Amino acid sequence: MDSRTTAGGPRIRIGMVGGGPGADIGATHRFAQRLDDRYELVAGVFGQDPEASKTFGAGLHVDPSRIYPDAETMADAEAEREDGIEVVTIATPNSSHLPLARIFLERGFSVVCEKPLTTSVADALELHRLATSAGVVFAVPHAYSAYAMVREAARLVRDGALGKLTLVQVEHASGWASEALERTGHKQALWRTTPEIAGFPSVVGDLGTHAFHLTRYITGLELEEVSADLSTVVPERGVIDNAFVHLHLTGGVRGALWASMVATGQEHGLRIRVFGEKGSLEWRHEDPQHLVVRSADATSTTLAQGQARLSEDAARLTRVGLGHSEGFLEAFTDFYSDVADALLARRDGAPFTPRELSFPTIDDGVLGVAFVDAAARSSSASGAWTKP
Amino acid sequence: MDSRTTAGGPRIRIGMVGGGPGADIGATHRFAQRLDDRYELVAGVFGQDPEASKTFGAGLHVDPSRIYPDAETMADAEAEREDGIEVVTIATPNSSHLPLARIFLERGFSVVCEKPLTTSVADALELHRLATSAGVVFAVPHAYSAYAMVREAARLVRDGALGKLTLVQVEHASGWASEALERTGHKQALWRTTPEIAGFPSVVGDLGTHAFHLTRYITGLELEEVSADLSTVVPERGVIDNAFVHLHLTGGVRGALWASMVATGQEHGLRIRVFGEKGSLEWRHEDPQHLVVRSADATSTTLAQGQARLSEDAARLTRVGLGHSEGFLEAFTDFYSDVADALLARRDGAPFTPRELSFPTIDDGVLGVAFVDAAARSSSASGAWTKP
Amino acid sequence: MDSRTTAGGPRIRIGMVGGGPGADIGATHRFAQRLDDRYELVAGVFGQDPEASKTFGAGLHVDPSRIYPDAETMADAEAEREDGIEVVTIATPNSSHLPLARIFLERGFSVVCEKPLTTSVADALELHRLATSAGVVFAVPHAYSAYAMVREAARLVRDGALGKLTLVQVEHASGWASEALERTGHKQALWRTTPEIAGFPSVVGDLGTHAFHLTRYITGLELEEVSADLSTVVPERGVIDNAFVHLHLTGGVRGALWASMVATGQEHGLRIRVFGEKGSLEWRHEDPQHLVVRSADATSTTLAQGQARLSEDAARLTRVGLGHSEGFLEAFTDFYSDVADALLARRDGAPFTPRELSFPTIDDGVLGVAFVDAAARSSSASGAWTKP
Amino acid sequence: MDSRTTAGGPRIRIGMVGGGPGADIGATHRFAQRLDDRYELVAGVFGQDPEASKTFGAGLHVDPSRIYPDAETMADAEAEREDGIEVVTIATPNSSHLPLARIFLERGFSVVCEKPLTTSVADALELHRLATSAGVVFAVPHAYSAYAMVREAARLVRDGALGKLTLVQVEHASGWASEALERTGHKQALWRTTPEIAGFPSVVGDLGTHAFHLTRYITGLELEEVSADLSTVVPERGVIDNAFVHLHLTGGVRGALWASMVATGQEHGLRIRVFGEKGSLEWRHEDPQHLVVRSADATSTTLAQGQARLSEDAARLTRVGLGHSEGFLEAFTDFYSDVADALLARRDGAPFTPRELSFPTIDDGVLGVAFVDAAARSSSASGAWTKP
Repeated sequence: MDSRTTAGGPRIRIGMVGGGPGADIGATHRFAQRLDDRYELVAGVFGQDPEASKTFGAGLHVDPSRIYPDAETMADAEAEREDGIEVVTIATPNSSHLPLARIFLERGFSVVCEKPLTTSVADALELHRLATSAGVVFAVPHAYSAYAMVREAARLVRDGALGKLTLVQVEHASGWASEALERTGHKQALWRTTPEIAGFPSVVGDLGTHAFHLTRYITGLELEEVSADLSTVVPERGVIDNAFVHLHLTGGVRGALWASMVATGQEHGLRIRVFGEKGSLEWRHEDPQHLVVRSADATSTTLAQGQARLSEDAARLTRVGLGHSEGFLEAFTDFYSDVADALLARRDGAPFTPRELSFPTIDDGVLGVAFVDAAARSSSASGAWTKP
Repeated sequence: MDSRTTAGGPRIRIGMVGGGPGADIGATHRFAQRLDDRYELVAGVFGQDPEASKTFGAGLHVDPSRIYPDAETMADAEAEREDGIEVVTIATPNSSHLPLARIFLERGFSVVCEKPLTTSVADALELHRLATSAGVVFAVPHAYSAYAMVREAARLVRDGALGKLTLVQVEHASGWASEALERTGHKQALWRTTPEIAGFPSVVGDLGTHAFHLTRYITGLELEEVSADLSTVVPERGVIDNAFVHLHLTGGVRGALWASMVATGQEHGLRIRVFGEKGSLEWRHEDPQHLVVRSADATSTTLAQGQARLSEDAARLTRVGLGHSEGFLEAFTDFYSDVADALLARRDGAPFTPRELSFPTIDDGVLGVAFVDAAARSSSASGAWTKP
Repeated sequence: MDSRTTAGGPRIRIGMVGGGPGADIGATHRFAQRLDDRYELVAGVFGQDPEASKTFGAGLHVDPSRIYPDAETMADAEAEREDGIEVVTIATPNSSHLPLARIFLERGFSVVCEKPLTTSVADALELHRLATSAGVVFAVPHAYSAYAMVREAARLVRDGALGKLTLVQVEHASGWASEALERTGHKQALWRTTPEIAGFPSVVGDLGTHAFHLTRYITGLELEEVSADLSTVVPERGVIDNAFVHLHLTGGVRGALWASMVATGQEHGLRIRVFGEKGSLEWRHEDPQHLVVRSADATSTTLAQGQARLSEDAARLTRVGLGHSEGFLEAFTDFYSDVADALLARRDGAPFTPRELSFPTIDDGVLGVAFVDAAARSSSASGAWTKP
Repeated sequence: MDSRTTAGGPRIRIGMVGGGPGADIGATHRFAQRLDDRYELVAGVFGQDPEASKTFGAGLHVDPSRIYPDAETMADAEAEREDGIEVVTIATPNSSHLPLARIFLERGFSVVCEKPLTTSVADALELHRLATSAGVVFAVPHAYSAYAMVREAARLVRDGALGKLTLVQVEHASGWASEALERTGHKQALWRTTPEIAGFPSVVGDLGTHAFHLTRYITGLELEEVSADLSTVVPERGVIDNAFVHLHLTGGVRGALWASMVATGQEHGLRIRVFGEKGSLEWRHEDPQHLVVRSADATSTTLAQGQARLSEDAARLTRVGLGHSEGFLEAFTDFYSDVADALLARRDGAPFTPRELSFPTIDDGVLGVAFVDAAARSSSASGAWTKP
């Protein structure tokens, strides 16, 4: 069998809200649903323009009768069908996550919801309440944590390879918006620099939460307090586009986190180094299939996806072989595949204990929003240490 | 739309011979057929054990009635159906390519056939004759030529960025079989070290043809003669596992090619450097989303997949954005997508002019076999310069 | 001529205090004095043990009569000689810099004094007063600023290659003391973890001042305020061994600085990235002969020492050619060579205008100490923004 | 003590022939003589123009009375002096090595002679005869073998870390003469493209012998036969500027060697990979302070100069510490320092057993010339396997 499968049973029926024409993230979700062949996209609202949505959905081989004018109609109709969707992906701008997710949660659908979860802690807690009472699967695609070598990193930390942890340095510093793209008609730049949609600390929510989640995922530590310096680098931009943040994590571990959309010339810029008493590790998104482990004497060892020596946590996410890179779409597929395990268990009514290293949930989403909120408050308070 | 699509029309119906349980390359083909959603796998012979094939195919959601005991039965049955396959993938060991392809070609099916095409030049020419007279699409998955940055490299060369070409150094030197895996029950190692199945110059056919095709693809040059030193490094191995080859290419360009399955410690080991009067370029499979271009003063410039400045040849093969790596499966998908363009034109009866930079065909397959043959003859003749 | 020379005139006569047996930094100074052949070591106090100093100095070909029991004796005796030293290098632990420098400054000798200059701002200002009133050359070996490619970086910034500067990320994070070396008899670890000798914020003074100076040197910006998180990672260590610091620089530029002696597994760990509106640059001490410049579209260009295209500021510091790495000792020699220019002008009584990009002076030393002091105060004040 | 010293005794008195104005290699020799402070340059003929030589030598602090008009005068005069030179460096174009070395050898001086030793095998053997009968130290500066991490590589191979050796791939492919510099007045390019001075297979002698020596030095293997493809890439150039060579080494080891001065865009381009049954290693001149060791499972381990775990062979050549790069001049100094050990033993009349890993001698020089000769003959014979 190619990979993690549905064991010959039918594919998981999934719907999508958002991700219409021009929305890269929607396409990413669909690639990831398809690659392992465990999902079938059967319904959707592909953007706010019903006609464009119809045309777009048809190109995706979605039955025209299941391309809906809005989320509420979709949720109602799908709830009626025997072959209705089992889960919906919400891939819309930040401020709409709560109202859209509410519609599906109240009707008992599982949800994959883009991050940052919401634009306020209050909204995040409300969404948490809704998800919990619905009792469904609620996944948040911090998909970087699904790279095989990130899983290997998390495994090494948990197995004590670094000894007691001491320090973390993490960055998600991209140069994508180092120019004022929002004034050139760039769709994503526009909404990400509109505080009402993206939230005022925009880059902290967009990229900072990825760096923050990656830190938590690999180290297993939680945030105690932050001291932040948020700023707006591009003149006249209405939101935060650069954030330097100091972290106090559980266990006395200190960290430095950098989130930026104005790190001119950098590609995606996600990178993490974790240090312990016995060694350290480094992972970079520009070379995701390798993991560097350094010992106290500065010997640097590079592990590669596909090696026989890797843990089951990494091996189970490897499709091809050593030296055949798997990239972002494969990581996103890994995320969806872990979600599929939970969804299938739910479909079968089987008890389900997630793996120790699995997909991020509503809990992670809420902690991400709390991090954004604390960073913003600290920065406003001249860098005072602030609890999330 | 996500990508290169079938324009809302039905997906291309594809079948597969080979690629059953444990065959990595079969899984790769299926991932690549799925990712862009342009193909639907509807029939197959998934290995030589009919029962195992049935079970395996069912896991792939293939209709049980279209999982066949052998290729001939499959070809006959599919030829009868209105909704029969349009194209078949042959993903079996080398020596079976000719007989299997013959079955499908004689019934008018298009073919995607693994490489090396055959184990002899005579067989390759016979297959060429069959394909030509069938008038179908015949594609050979030297999928490395489908990476966006390989396409960019080929474009730069054609656009004169390096000036007149002078030298090539190319390697496909992997360490995968540096130990005698064939004596440990490793399935692929076993057939690749059996001369009757893999051909005696095994690694030249397996990896050398990839290096050779990549050279031709990027430079646009053809082979004039070779001087080769083929050897068997692992004791008692019955085939060639290392090949150092000097190349004389058209235009007076000299080259060195290294194919190895015993380059201990190397991952996949595919890498090419092309030199010209004005500059050079380097591409490595371990970092496929970058391309390094060097000027005469040794300034080294790294281009990245997803940059706005890249050519249409690279841009059209990019699904995600800058800094989000696309790997081997995406390149294989690119290959299938270019093939799909040709298949759809054929389906529609439309005239079809392939792009200048598109998928490898039967012609490339034949030249690959001729290269293997010439290298083997040269090595036997003490390195004498030998024409293909 | 090999390099920057004394134009056939006699070499500069130099003495040394400190740098005796086992002191790496003393050896570094001597290599650097020798390489370009512009200095002659003629006198010294090589450690506190007079006998060991005698033996050690003899091995250095220093006339035994000019190996002194203490600095005061040395200064007095050398002041008497017609061929006495022109300059002295002070390569002793931090707390002794002020008293030793005072001895030589008061007798009119030029001084090369190790960093951090002193263990308090008051001492630094006192030393500044002494140096200024002596009217001599006073150089501080932040020798990293003397690498050819650091000079090229500073030149590119000054020439506007990056546009208006926006952000800085700089690290000097080594793993050298990630274990409690001070409890194993390691001499340098012992004094660097003794607050009375190294100063309490030890690593900020030792490595942080290098990172800080490099930032100022390349950007040309000055510090306005810091927000710092200083900590002690190794249990029972009496000094700071890790520092995360946020910087507000002139011109509204934000920065993050990391100084550490406990970044387990990292080699020397000095690295800087400077961002501007049009591009960015990166330099790493582990690969000092290259400089990476990135444009807004993420094209990454690597410049190499020895290229014809580099500025005079880099070219004049290049001894060998392209592809022949010059390392730490060459950079230290560059520092001494720039100092020699000033010393020779002084010898000749000629007016001397230092180059725009030359060696660090007492001014830089004082600013370094002020940075250490501000960081310590900020950290004590819970990260409050603190002016130096 | 800083380093390998003369133990307080007087420095070794050295002279130089060649290395005058504009000759980079002469400057390199002088830097290397000075850095460890074991030599004193006291006499010379700095080029063929006596006046220029005088001026140049004075700038080097050489006593004007010991700057001679020609080598014969120098050798005679120095032989007369009690404080005459002990050794002479010959840093002139290739064709003059034999006559110049003869002058000094016949008077009993030790010699450091640039490579390639001569322009013919006959001349090399004649020089070998002269050196042997003189009974002096005769060193050939293949200084790349003196890098600490090359020594570590040689040590690892000898200690069996790679198991039985199987393959070598080595390159010295620079782009320095990818343009016709010889037509622009470039002094070195001019003589290196004049067959009477450089020898016809110019690049094989200049760079190929370095690659060849490095191979022998690290592997401990000798050449059995070659199959070569030599060519001239730059139009109208009178010598070979690119060489692809296949090697059969002792022990059945196969190799590929590439020497080029027309690898456009490459810096120095010296790099070697050695493969064995258990692992492989890689060293690159552009990053000389690291050594990469790969295991059979493709785990890649990077060792760094200055680590405590390295062998004595590497440790004894390390001046600064981990993370402080030492470059080409330090390697060249290492070469001179090993030569100094032999010279001092000779001065003292002490028995001298060179270390297993020490400096290259006349033997290595002769083998280098024999390699050049065999490669040229093979290429002329259409790549026929040819014994040296």
